[in-house]
Amino acid sequence: MKSFVPVAALCAIVVVMFVLPGNLFSTSPVKPSAEMLKQLEAEFMKAAADKGSQGYMSYYADDSVEVPNNAPLILGKAEIAKGMDFLDDKNNRLTWTPVGADISSSGDLGYTYGNYEFRAKDKEGKPVVQYGKYTSIWKRQKDGSWKVVLDMGNASPEAK
Amino acid sequence: MKSFVPVAALCAIVVVMFVLPGNLFSTSPVKPSAEMLKQLEAEFMKAAADKGSQGYMSYYADDSVEVPNNAPLILGKAEIAKGMDFLDDKNNRLTWTPVGADISSSGDLGYTYGNYEFRAKDKEGKPVVQYGKYTSIWKRQKDGSWKVVLDMGNASPEAK
Repeated sequence: MKSFVPVAALCAIVVVMFVLPGNLFSTSPVKPSAEMLKQLEAEFMKAAADKGSQGYMSYYADDSVEVPNNAPLILGKAEIAKGMDFLDDKNNRLTWTPVGADISSSGDLGYTYGNYEFRAKDKEGKPVVQYGKYTSIWKRQKDGSWKVVLDMGNASPEAK
Repeated sequence: MKSFVPVAALCAIVVVMFVLPGNLFSTSPVKPSAEMLKQLEAEFMKAAADKGSQGYMSYYADDSVEVPNNAPLILGKAEIAKGMDFLDDKNNRLTWTPVGADISSSGDLGYTYGNYEFRAKDKEGKPVVQYGKYTSIWKRQKDGSWKVVLDMGNASPEAK
């Protein structure tokens, strides 16, 4: 039993030095990776589903840029938010699925791209679906949080 | 006159130590910056104007992704190149202007976004113009060159 004590002590030191600081003291405990960005995107989508436009916009940086299809560039979170009310209509549901992602070696800039579906109801209350694609560029902020700095969408052919 | 000699010597040392190595010995003499990406984009456009699809595709990474409007995702340079023949038609001219750009602190991943114009001729030979927006994501390659890893386009309203 005695021979295990140094090992246990060593383990304790390792935990204190390397594991705890990552969880207790860092503003971003998860190591930045492409996989982390996909995870973040799932949380982003949940925020939009649960809290509508407010939840959606909480993932945007103040100096973010929206590149909407069939409309001009929109610069800044405050301007982008003005066009996101449609997410507060319970008949509307925006969901998206990343296909790929990558991140810089410094772990402070990355992107995801993939497909989205927008489910709504037409004037007669009949369900309609629009299919599209997106690219989101994510940047680590000064407080350690990750925010969308650019979001772009375009149209996909109808699913068959 | 004599008093200028040390200054001249100092200038020579500065040139040898800091300026020359950047130009002679580095694979990427220009310090990575958002401004550098805009510059690169001007060269990219010139390559497309001078050499058509071959010039255009020479700025794409092998594992690049195209996110075209009204069409599905295209994965890989070889697949993307198959749809770029239209740039070899002298009636067609694709030009673009970056509005903004940013780069990671590690200087290995960045992006540009902006507006594009596509000038072509219709069946009667009459000039037509399509307006759109784009986002290009650039990644520094292992050989030090910068290549597009993702390009996305969508439509803009007609210019007024």
